[in-house]
Amino acid sequence: MEARLREVGGAAPGGLARPALEALTSGGKRLRPLLLLLSAGIGAPVWEEALRAAAATEVLHTATLIHDDIVDKAKSRRGAPTTVARYGREVAVATGDYLFAEAFAALSSIGDPRVIREFAEASRGLAAGELEQFRASGGPVDVEDYLEHIKLKTAGLFRAACVAGGTLGGLSLPQIDALATYGQALGLAFQMSDDVMDLVGKPGIMGKGIGTDLAEGTVTLPIIFALREGDAETIRRVLATPRPDPELLEAGIEAVLDTDAVARTEAWAREEIGTALRGLEALPACPERAFLEVIAAEVVGRDV
Amino acid sequence: MEARLREVGGAAPGGLARPALEALTSGGKRLRPLLLLLSAGIGAPVWEEALRAAAATEVLHTATLIHDDIVDKAKSRRGAPTTVARYGREVAVATGDYLFAEAFAALSSIGDPRVIREFAEASRGLAAGELEQFRASGGPVDVEDYLEHIKLKTAGLFRAACVAGGTLGGLSLPQIDALATYGQALGLAFQMSDDVMDLVGKPGIMGKGIGTDLAEGTVTLPIIFALREGDAETIRRVLATPRPDPELLEAGIEAVLDTDAVARTEAWAREEIGTALRGLEALPACPERAFLEVIAAEVVGRDV
Repeated sequence: MEARLREVGGAAPGGLARPALEALTSGGKRLRPLLLLLSAGIGAPVWEEALRAAAATEVLHTATLIHDDIVDKAKSRRGAPTTVARYGREVAVATGDYLFAEAFAALSSIGDPRVIREFAEASRGLAAGELEQFRASGGPVDVEDYLEHIKLKTAGLFRAACVAGGTLGGLSLPQIDALATYGQALGLAFQMSDDVMDLVGKPGIMGKGIGTDLAEGTVTLPIIFALREGDAETIRRVLATPRPDPELLEAGIEAVLDTDAVARTEAWAREEIGTALRGLEALPACPERAFLEVIAAEVVGRDV
Repeated sequence: MEARLREVGGAAPGGLARPALEALTSGGKRLRPLLLLLSAGIGAPVWEEALRAAAATEVLHTATLIHDDIVDKAKSRRGAPTTVARYGREVAVATGDYLFAEAFAALSSIGDPRVIREFAEASRGLAAGELEQFRASGGPVDVEDYLEHIKLKTAGLFRAACVAGGTLGGLSLPQIDALATYGQALGLAFQMSDDVMDLVGKPGIMGKGIGTDLAEGTVTLPIIFALREGDAETIRRVLATPRPDPELLEAGIEAVLDTDAVARTEAWAREEIGTALRGLEALPACPERAFLEVIAAEVVGRDV
């Protein structure tokens, strides 16, 4: 997968090759390609096709991250400057567009329109989600808005990766539906867990989280819960302040952690994981299914 | 086509519907859908599929224009504010991404991977072309660079529209190749003609062109010729000046028009039209082919 992604980046024309290559090799965990390949492996795919689709999944994901960082004006990601921070928004727009087109070019070479449709639908959701995150900044968000948003931004591509894999593996429609249930619920849990880690820090790493969401005015599920139960005034002040100073941000994180918002969010994520695991029961017992179960179990309290 | 495009725009989620609708209904001439439908009509398409693909062509084109205007920081297009000028770059990035995904979702519903591949390849070129235009600003560009650039930015989608139409019409491979030749040559001539009109004004409209390309530092074919033959110093000064004042810009336009750069560009465009028309000879005589011939003849000195 790494070699394929390097190849895709290096094949980009002219000034796009460097930013594309950097974005594609900046240390993602390749979770979406893994989901696609495991889902495919439950059946009997043409592996070359499955590998191509798996790489396209990551290319599409990377294109979205590059454009997200333009929308969010993000300076760094995974410890490195974002494409927009390093090369400016002109290069970032074009690099994202190129990778997006490259993903669909690769998918079209597989020749299964159902696979392309899955990713096109997911991409439509990703684009809609880009803007909603921006518009929600600082404003009120309720649980339904949040769920809708993370379905578009995260769960849609997880789902598409699983469905595409099952399709390429030649699974039955009920089996592909089961993978869709798994992928969507896993994606929701993944995002909830991510939102918790932004507040409490990553497992195995000392110290608190960095409160990026609070600082950027992004209202996540734990923040919604904390606004209802805790010191809403402080939390709202942090959300409404562009670039809050460290003390204010720290006060905001404390205000969230003083409630049971994190525990409630983790409980919700665990429920989603339950849904994901029940989905897998419709699939034949095999090493790939066992691996998908392990991934689901790892997502709550994960570092993937 | 207009009703379909309004439908696509209106179906966009949340904050994307208004910008999407405005961009899709801002008065484009729908040349690309027309090329697709005429090419399809040479054979025997499923018209519902051809119409869907034709609309997707325009949606894809519109997505590119929206992102181009971010890259070029353009304030207006077709007499109206650009999406980026009216809604900011966050909304413009997301709206373009949404329309791009929407186009591929529509294409995937047709179920012919060859059609999707054509547009994915063209989109890859469009993205590469976005950046090259930006990078060329103010710098030296030669004829080969220019041709490569307009192949990516303009001719690629013309070609894809013709090839997709021929494919959906069930034409033979040699016939589809002939349409590819036609589409590509037409696109090149179209862009050359556009570049001339930027300097001499549009037919039927009094007065000179507005010199947008010179003002933005974009080196087009007539400008390349004029740099070789005329007052290169003045032209270079205009190209290198961000937002040149009206006198300087006027001097730059004059410096180009004092050479035979426009005549040479028009001659090149006519040669491309010759190539386009020769391509059509491989196709059966029919009203659609005659219409494609008329379009080619109109492109030099056109207003489409």
